[in-house]
Amino acid sequence: MSRTPASEVGAHNARVKAARRLRKRAIRSRERLFLAEGPQAVREALGRPDSVVEVFATADCAARNGELVEAADAQGVGWYAVSPVVLSSIAQTVTPQGVVAVCRFLDREIGGLLADRESTAVPPLVVVCADVRDPGNAGTVIRCADAAGADGVVLAGSSVDPYNGKCVRASAGSLFHVPIVAGVSVAEAVGELRRAGLTVVAADGSGDTDLHRTDDAGLFAGPTGWLFGNEAWGLPAEVTALADAVVRVPIYGRAESLNLATAAAVCLYTTTRAQRRVVEGD
Amino acid sequence: MSRTPASEVGAHNARVKAARRLRKRAIRSRERLFLAEGPQAVREALGRPDSVVEVFATADCAARNGELVEAADAQGVGWYAVSPVVLSSIAQTVTPQGVVAVCRFLDREIGGLLADRESTAVPPLVVVCADVRDPGNAGTVIRCADAAGADGVVLAGSSVDPYNGKCVRASAGSLFHVPIVAGVSVAEAVGELRRAGLTVVAADGSGDTDLHRTDDAGLFAGPTGWLFGNEAWGLPAEVTALADAVVRVPIYGRAESLNLATAAAVCLYTTTRAQRRVVEGD
Repeated sequence: MSRTPASEVGAHNARVKAARRLRKRAIRSRERLFLAEGPQAVREALGRPDSVVEVFATADCAARNGELVEAADAQGVGWYAVSPVVLSSIAQTVTPQGVVAVCRFLDREIGGLLADRESTAVPPLVVVCADVRDPGNAGTVIRCADAAGADGVVLAGSSVDPYNGKCVRASAGSLFHVPIVAGVSVAEAVGELRRAGLTVVAADGSGDTDLHRTDDAGLFAGPTGWLFGNEAWGLPAEVTALADAVVRVPIYGRAESLNLATAAAVCLYTTTRAQRRVVEGD
Repeated sequence: MSRTPASEVGAHNARVKAARRLRKRAIRSRERLFLAEGPQAVREALGRPDSVVEVFATADCAARNGELVEAADAQGVGWYAVSPVVLSSIAQTVTPQGVVAVCRFLDREIGGLLADRESTAVPPLVVVCADVRDPGNAGTVIRCADAAGADGVVLAGSSVDPYNGKCVRASAGSLFHVPIVAGVSVAEAVGELRRAGLTVVAADGSGDTDLHRTDDAGLFAGPTGWLFGNEAWGLPAEVTALADAVVRVPIYGRAESLNLATAAAVCLYTTTRAQRRVVEGD
């Protein structure tokens, strides 16, 4: 495969300036573009057709990641060589890993979330983050949802922008794998899941039934939508009122609670196991 | 209850200077003292008898947390009023929450970890962190272990200092609940757990058996020790060789892995559930 030689661009290049502006949420929303940083994220981005607009990388990083240069070339994605200083001016980390991709927004309409689901015997599993504000938590929930084989993550209400740099990094590439919905209210999200036939379960420390007993009763074997709330204040009563069940992760020791991402991991793995146990006839 | 009036101390006070030095690991190790920051951590610290040496707080914070002042007073723990600037000079966060306690080290010898275990029908559950370097991960694992009702967490090998400020904060008070062991090799920790009759299970993405099938086979119903590895490089072969089983958390989607704390949460909850199911005869 013949490689297009990388054009070298400087700090005042218009593309570099435009990329740098994507560190601001308002600019990202207007352009519907965001930044993915580091070889792993750029690899995942290039693995999803039509996601990447262009790539900025240091010569060192390009030399170490020839397969990324080739993948970009094969897709006709522009690859621009920049100095470490210019790369740092675009990147959002203190010690950038040499490469940043400008990517197109990935989110879709909530109505289409389950429509183009691949045919599978495993029932649908969708995660709704209600007012989840910390980008690291949101990204980790996206990663867990991907690992658990979920069909989508909805960042509802006042939840963090999924294209926030910290969220992209915490998702460890899963943002490019799992269908994402943003910009809907929690009520809209719940309404849509219910129309699609999902049982909507809210995770809350105040839940009157515990996760394991609820699982033993068979609730998670069918199509399931999970609602997770804000890291500090949980789910407000008007949101838990929308759910079919309010379930707490049991606390056997003296911890007050689990943090959001670990609680979500426990709930999602309990569900995906129950869904697959039915399918596999265990 | 009569309250001792708080003495006001300034930036150059010897106690303040000594407390400030505890932000360094070497000083902590020498003095066997560490800092717990914020009302929640200080509440948990005061809830564990003989853990707190003294407390520094702003007048505002003391006024808002009268129950902490009373708890300190009841234990004869010195309470020193400091200005917000002096508090910031001791605290390890950018926006400190007005109170810092100087606490005694909590870790114990590994030999005693299960010796003074409260009598219970639930089999023992112990967590070993092998070379876990990120303090936020270590603290979150301690919090999960507490929530799951574990009997202890061993920070083995080159694992982070449990008294690192970020670890203390991420544990959300659980450092004061769960028995902690530090400063032992991974081999010593595994040897001790095995002598105590625990089945030692290593969590690793390369594991040849999956968590759910291993659980279905009944492995987790008895006394169990979990081994979790470094966030970047996992568990080396010489460590997995020490384990009775090497188990992977199943990945159903396209994520490469879960992060350390979420994987630990899934493993620990799977185990505690299996252990309690047997006891409760479900």
